[in-house]
Amino acid sequence: MFESAEIGRSIDKDTFEKQLPELREALLAAQYQLKEQGKLAVLILINGIEGAGKGETIKLLNEWMDARLIQVDTFDQQTDEELSRPPAWRYWRQLPAKGRTAIFFGNWYSQMFQGRVHGLFKDAQLDQYIDDTLSLERMLSDEGVLIFKFWFHLSKPQMKARLKSLRDDPLHSWRLSPLDWQQSKTYDKFIKVGERVLRRTSRDYAPWYVVEGVDPNYRSLTVARTLLDGLQAALQLNTKPQPQPHAAPLIANLDQRSLLDSLDMSQALSKDYYQQQLTQEQARLSSLMRDKRMRKHALVAVFEGNDAAGKGGAIRRVIGALDPRQYRIVPVAAPTDEERVQPYLWRFWRHIPARGKFTLFDRSWYGRVLVERVEGFCSPADWLRAYGEINDFEEQLSESGIVLVKFWLSIDQKTQLKRFKEREKIPFKRFKITEEDWRNREKWPQYREAVGDMVDRTSTEIAPWTLVEANDKRFARIKVLRTINDALEAAFAKD
Amino acid sequence: MFESAEIGRSIDKDTFEKQLPELREALLAAQYQLKEQGKLAVLILINGIEGAGKGETIKLLNEWMDARLIQVDTFDQQTDEELSRPPAWRYWRQLPAKGRTAIFFGNWYSQMFQGRVHGLFKDAQLDQYIDDTLSLERMLSDEGVLIFKFWFHLSKPQMKARLKSLRDDPLHSWRLSPLDWQQSKTYDKFIKVGERVLRRTSRDYAPWYVVEGVDPNYRSLTVARTLLDGLQAALQLNTKPQPQPHAAPLIANLDQRSLLDSLDMSQALSKDYYQQQLTQEQARLSSLMRDKRMRKHALVAVFEGNDAAGKGGAIRRVIGALDPRQYRIVPVAAPTDEERVQPYLWRFWRHIPARGKFTLFDRSWYGRVLVERVEGFCSPADWLRAYGEINDFEEQLSESGIVLVKFWLSIDQKTQLKRFKEREKIPFKRFKITEEDWRNREKWPQYREAVGDMVDRTSTEIAPWTLVEANDKRFARIKVLRTINDALEAAFAKD
Repeated sequence: MFESAEIGRSIDKDTFEKQLPELREALLAAQYQLKEQGKLAVLILINGIEGAGKGETIKLLNEWMDARLIQVDTFDQQTDEELSRPPAWRYWRQLPAKGRTAIFFGNWYSQMFQGRVHGLFKDAQLDQYIDDTLSLERMLSDEGVLIFKFWFHLSKPQMKARLKSLRDDPLHSWRLSPLDWQQSKTYDKFIKVGERVLRRTSRDYAPWYVVEGVDPNYRSLTVARTLLDGLQAALQLNTKPQPQPHAAPLIANLDQRSLLDSLDMSQALSKDYYQQQLTQEQARLSSLMRDKRMRKHALVAVFEGNDAAGKGGAIRRVIGALDPRQYRIVPVAAPTDEERVQPYLWRFWRHIPARGKFTLFDRSWYGRVLVERVEGFCSPADWLRAYGEINDFEEQLSESGIVLVKFWLSIDQKTQLKRFKEREKIPFKRFKITEEDWRNREKWPQYREAVGDMVDRTSTEIAPWTLVEANDKRFARIKVLRTINDALEAAFAKD
Repeated sequence: MFESAEIGRSIDKDTFEKQLPELREALLAAQYQLKEQGKLAVLILINGIEGAGKGETIKLLNEWMDARLIQVDTFDQQTDEELSRPPAWRYWRQLPAKGRTAIFFGNWYSQMFQGRVHGLFKDAQLDQYIDDTLSLERMLSDEGVLIFKFWFHLSKPQMKARLKSLRDDPLHSWRLSPLDWQQSKTYDKFIKVGERVLRRTSRDYAPWYVVEGVDPNYRSLTVARTLLDGLQAALQLNTKPQPQPHAAPLIANLDQRSLLDSLDMSQALSKDYYQQQLTQEQARLSSLMRDKRMRKHALVAVFEGNDAAGKGGAIRRVIGALDPRQYRIVPVAAPTDEERVQPYLWRFWRHIPARGKFTLFDRSWYGRVLVERVEGFCSPADWLRAYGEINDFEEQLSESGIVLVKFWLSIDQKTQLKRFKEREKIPFKRFKITEEDWRNREKWPQYREAVGDMVDRTSTEIAPWTLVEANDKRFARIKVLRTINDALEAAFAKD
């Protein structure tokens, strides 16, 4: 795979200097068009052999382009804030906004290369990381992130010569960390892992470019041209995303019946029994949250449901016995403009709790397959691919020890009407009922279908949906509390 | 000071339960009005004696109000990301947005109390912290943050009894950290420091409320009523801020001459000399940034100047020899909507570099006393108080080891006209010249006056302005680079 990047390609000084002005001008023009169009972000991943000119090339790019629109990030040691959250959190927080470019050194590939070369895991685990990476990059690409992946290459003798000359140059010797030298010994391993990863992760939406790194003129022109071509092509492309032909419902559903129909909506609790259960379950949750084992976990609860199904009331009962320093409630409304220029899941990633903490989402990332689908706020291609993206996202939360519970609070149309009318009568509840609620009510069948699809496609073993019969508020609240407690206990039992 | 909070006030259950429903309804109504008005944020600081019911009261408040609009933050151990920035950074990142409420436990007062009680510093230092706090709270208040400060009180015997009963109650014993017990011994010291701090920091814009903590009914009703009264008063208040009468220019300036007039605008460098100096100063900066002593510092460079004065070109020369992983350029444009609901300086605090890093601001917090003043985007009261706020801000940066350099790139009107016309001719520079630039040009005298005031009032020993004669781009670039290098060297020499 790397052979053709070891043949000693070079570009002489005259050719280089002749091409440069036109290239720089075109790069700048593309960069400003990117900014003005505001539809795409650019993400450049830098990997490869030590000494192959990664840093120098990026330095040049910053000089040639408008550095004010570029950010360069390194991901070395995780900070303690990063360590207490899922591994991908550190990348999400640094994603470039639309119109801007980010260059990631020490990205997710570096972790894979280093980990496998130093024997931290085997090929099977590597393949798992590769699959995760493909999902991530596919999703970023679908969300408007243009991905370039560069592997800077040197043959083994070239690398040895390069490292030696850098070591002897007093101006450059600071660059060489002990790790670099170690890599000289592990060159063969590194190449082997590199090949495996590049082969499997080079995709049309996120291709790898192998750049021969010996000659500075050659490597910098190559990277700049590749970027320019990719940018120009993407800027001219103006096709709408198309849904995949196989994006049909997961479960054939010809009779329009769904899980919602199987709920026994008549379930209710007496006031006394409710009070007793509430005290008991709240005490249980409070004690579980203070349990030492909670330090290894975090808790995320998602509240979705029909309008007026009692999400707010249920949330209040859940936090009733908790120390407010341990939890945070995130009400999900229209995205801010900083959220709008990022991939969809970004605005949820930023609220993922650290270990020991509890985040309650009052509405959530499921908005995409509910309100956005029904109201047409996003294209069918967008919400159809969201099911898989959400499952990937939740898997990452789960794998980092986050206990995830998801509630759909379900009421029937009659109950909703009654509650809407009650709300209109009580002065300080009137703000809760708007024109929009009445409009949503007219789309009851469409919402019902969306909920059915959502549950079918995203109720997984690691993050099952709990459908809550909520015609009786007391019944709903106890079911919610008990479900959270059971989930925490089950997670602790597995530790 | 605390005597009247030791007389055993209490409220019986009947009275409490009779008052509660009306109180809760009014609190909710105020909360929603706060949200809808979107002009104020609420910040509640919680301090006082251990065992006086701080946590319990906040828990109740969350139950009574809409917890979705409240966030509760604790500031215990600093994370490593916080440790590498000025101390106030951790508070800035958690400030509530307009329409929302934040409750800070373990806030800036806790640090003062604990530090003084445990002898980490003396009264003189405490008084310095008090002054800083007053400036911070004054500024937050001016920026629309409504501040409530609660001291939960217990007499010494009350505290001892309370801690004992908590210890004996298995449901509560988890609450008591070793530090709490220690406080029993240091009660007298704590009270003494508390008195000093409360006396000096209780202001009309941020008053202290001492709450007797023995009786749960009494303390929670007191806090809730205090909040309600304060909220309602603030929501009804609709006066525009008035500038202070003494906000005249710092230096009597009757003949309209300013420092700008004293610049020798004819200074220029030959191409050869420039090239040689550029290489030299870039190498110097590159080596300073790699110096071990840089680990204790960070570097912030502010670029302001006339339109077309060459800020972008100067920035490019500064970063020319640097590793892009070490610096970040922050172009300052219109605030995002997340920035608009925060105090003015919030959007700059979020970009303050960690130790070892370098941030270049292409335009900056000085926008308030330049474009916002001249164009009338903020009230005179706002920009007049900004000088002091900016000096406080920069002092905080400086005290945490940040080296701060500020440039005003100055050109004359003739040079500006020439550059505007040139830009209009070059296709890929045309985006750089807009209608707005021509309009700004008409306000040359107003901008000149604003610049003069800015330099007079914010050129301090810790953060002096460097006026750069920029008719000759080469001269300007070298002066900028050399100033940065000299500032870094001076800072290193002091270590």
